[in-house]
Amino acid sequence: MNQLVDGEWRTDTYESTNEDGEFERQSTTFRNEIEDDPDAEFPAEAGRYHLYVCYACPWAHRTLLVRALKGLEDAITVDYVDPYRGEDGWQFTPEKEGCTPDSVNGFDYLREAYVAADPDATCRVTVPVLWDKKQDTVVNNESAEIIRMLDTEMDSVAERDVDLYPEGYQEEVDRIIEDIYEPINNGVYRAGFATSQEAYDQAIDDLFGALDHWDEVLEDQRYLAGDRLTEADICMYTTLVRFDQVYHTHFMCNVRQIQQYDNLWPYLRDLFQTPGVAGTVNMDHIKEHYYTTHPDVTPSRIVARGPDLDFEAPHDRDDLPGEPPEDLLALA
Amino acid sequence: MNQLVDGEWRTDTYESTNEDGEFERQSTTFRNEIEDDPDAEFPAEAGRYHLYVCYACPWAHRTLLVRALKGLEDAITVDYVDPYRGEDGWQFTPEKEGCTPDSVNGFDYLREAYVAADPDATCRVTVPVLWDKKQDTVVNNESAEIIRMLDTEMDSVAERDVDLYPEGYQEEVDRIIEDIYEPINNGVYRAGFATSQEAYDQAIDDLFGALDHWDEVLEDQRYLAGDRLTEADICMYTTLVRFDQVYHTHFMCNVRQIQQYDNLWPYLRDLFQTPGVAGTVNMDHIKEHYYTTHPDVTPSRIVARGPDLDFEAPHDRDDLPGEPPEDLLALA
Repeated sequence: MNQLVDGEWRTDTYESTNEDGEFERQSTTFRNEIEDDPDAEFPAEAGRYHLYVCYACPWAHRTLLVRALKGLEDAITVDYVDPYRGEDGWQFTPEKEGCTPDSVNGFDYLREAYVAADPDATCRVTVPVLWDKKQDTVVNNESAEIIRMLDTEMDSVAERDVDLYPEGYQEEVDRIIEDIYEPINNGVYRAGFATSQEAYDQAIDDLFGALDHWDEVLEDQRYLAGDRLTEADICMYTTLVRFDQVYHTHFMCNVRQIQQYDNLWPYLRDLFQTPGVAGTVNMDHIKEHYYTTHPDVTPSRIVARGPDLDFEAPHDRDDLPGEPPEDLLALA
Repeated sequence: MNQLVDGEWRTDTYESTNEDGEFERQSTTFRNEIEDDPDAEFPAEAGRYHLYVCYACPWAHRTLLVRALKGLEDAITVDYVDPYRGEDGWQFTPEKEGCTPDSVNGFDYLREAYVAADPDATCRVTVPVLWDKKQDTVVNNESAEIIRMLDTEMDSVAERDVDLYPEGYQEEVDRIIEDIYEPINNGVYRAGFATSQEAYDQAIDDLFGALDHWDEVLEDQRYLAGDRLTEADICMYTTLVRFDQVYHTHFMCNVRQIQQYDNLWPYLRDLFQTPGVAGTVNMDHIKEHYYTTHPDVTPSRIVARGPDLDFEAPHDRDDLPGEPPEDLLALA
C-alpha cells in the first residue's frame, strides 16, 4: 500500500491487514474544525472552503450528500479525482468523464495537497479532503467530522434550512453512526480485504447481523433515528447504494443483496429519491474504482456487470412516520 | 496452467486465454465408448468400469447424476478427488471429508491414471475420467459422451428403467445440449476466466441472454426438452446448482441470481428434489474448489459465505406437463 512518509511518497510501507488477516483502517490525520464563529481559526464563510472527493468513495460521498441537501454548492467548491487509484494514489485526470482538474491548486496528485498542508506528512492520502483556500491548508479529512461541520456550523451560508443533527435526536444519531460504522460501513472493507478465512467470516457475521437488525428497525420508521432524516441516514446510505453492485461481488459480501431486504431496499430507494441525493451518485465511477483499484481482490481489473437496480421504483415509505425536510420537499 | 506433455507433468505450458483475453477450453483426449455389445472393445459389464470425479466439477457431476438416476451405483464404482486443485493437479486426499483414496490403482495424483493409459499423454488432466479396470486404461474423459454411454449402453446392468435420451426426443436433446454449452455451461468460465473487459462483456451477454431464454421456455414445460427429464436437464442442472454460490460472485456472473428467476429457480429445486439427485451435490466441495483453486480470480483463497438457498422448498412444478421417470418416483 502507498502513503506519505515524512512528506515523501512511498509504495511499500505498510500492510493493510494484521497478522490475523484482519483489515485495519488507519486513522485520518487532519482534524481541524470549521466553526460558526467569525473569530475562529476556520470560520464559516461562503467561497472559502473546497472539497476534494472521489465519486466512488463512500466516505467522500457523505460530504457530497450533506453539501447537496443543505444547499452548500455555491458556498463550497468541489473537485473530483479519477476513480482509478493506482501506484500514485488519487489523481486528477480532467479528461475523464465526471472528473475535474484541481481547480484550486492545479495539483496533479491529491498527495500534493497533503504535503502543501504539512511538508512532513506521514499518512495515507484519502478522500474526502476539506481544504481552506484562504490559509492554503487542509482543514479536515475525516468524513464524519466534515459532515458534522457542514451540517451544524455552516447554516449562515447554506441555501436551505435542512438540519441533519436536530435537537432531541443528537444522542441517538451519534449512537447510530458509531453502531453502524464497524459492522457495516467499515464491515464491507473488513470482509473484502480480509486475508484469512476467520477474519472474513467474522466480518460477514457482523455485517449481515447488523443489516438484518436495521432492516427490522426500518419496518416501522422511515429513518434510522425515527421520523427525521439525519446524518445517520447519510452514513448508512453511501454503503447501501454501493452494496449490490460492488460489495456483494467484489468484496464477497454475498449472503444477501440489499434488493432482497424487505425494508432496507425501499429505504435505499426512498433516500435515493430525496431531492439532491441522486445527483451525488456516479455508479460508473463507483464500479470502476472498486473493480480496477484492488488487484489483490480482482486481479483481472474487469468491471463486473452487476444487477440492474431500479432506484427510481416507488418506495411506498411515505406512510411511515417522518418525511424529508420541508425545504427539500419544495424542490421535488 | 499445468498439464501433461509427453507423459511429463508441467506447470508452465499453456495460457488458458487467447490474445483477446477469451478463455479457450482445451478439448478432451480419450474418446472411446462403452457399447451394449459383448464383443465390443469396451462392453457394458457390471463391476468393470470406474469413475474418477470431483464433487465440485460440473462436468464430473453430470456423470454422478446419470449413475445415480439409472441405478448404476453397484455397476460402476467411483472415487472422489480433493476439491482443491493445486500445482500437482487433481489429487487423492482420503483423509479429507467427502474424499476417497484411489481404490482402483492406489495413485496419489489423477495424472498417474492418464500416464498409465498413455505414457506419452499430452493433455490437461481433468475429471471425469471413465476407467476400465479390465484393460487398465481410460475409456473416455468427455462428460457429454460418458453420460450418453451410461444412459444408452448400460441398461443391462442398470437397476432402474430410466431413459434420459428417449426416442422422439433425441434430436431435441442433442440440440439443447449443444445450445446451452457455449453460453451457459462454458459461459460461466468464459466470464470468470476472461482477462479483457470485452471478453467478459461478451460472455455475460451470452450467458444472461441464454438464461433469460430458457427461463421463458420453462414457463410452460417442466423440462428443457418438454415433458421428459433428459440428459439436457442433467447438463443444465450442474451449472445452475453452482450458480448463486460460486459463479455469481467468484466468476462475477452477477446480473441476476438463479433464485431471482421465476422459472429457473423452481426448475432447479424440482431437479434437486428428484430422487437420487440431492445425494450427488456436495456444496462444501463446490465452494472450496472454486474459491481456493483460482488465485488469478480470488487471490485470498477465502471461501465466500454465499446465499442460504433452500433447495428443498416446494417447487410447484408438478402441474406442468411431464413428470420424473416412474422408477424414480417409486423411490420418493
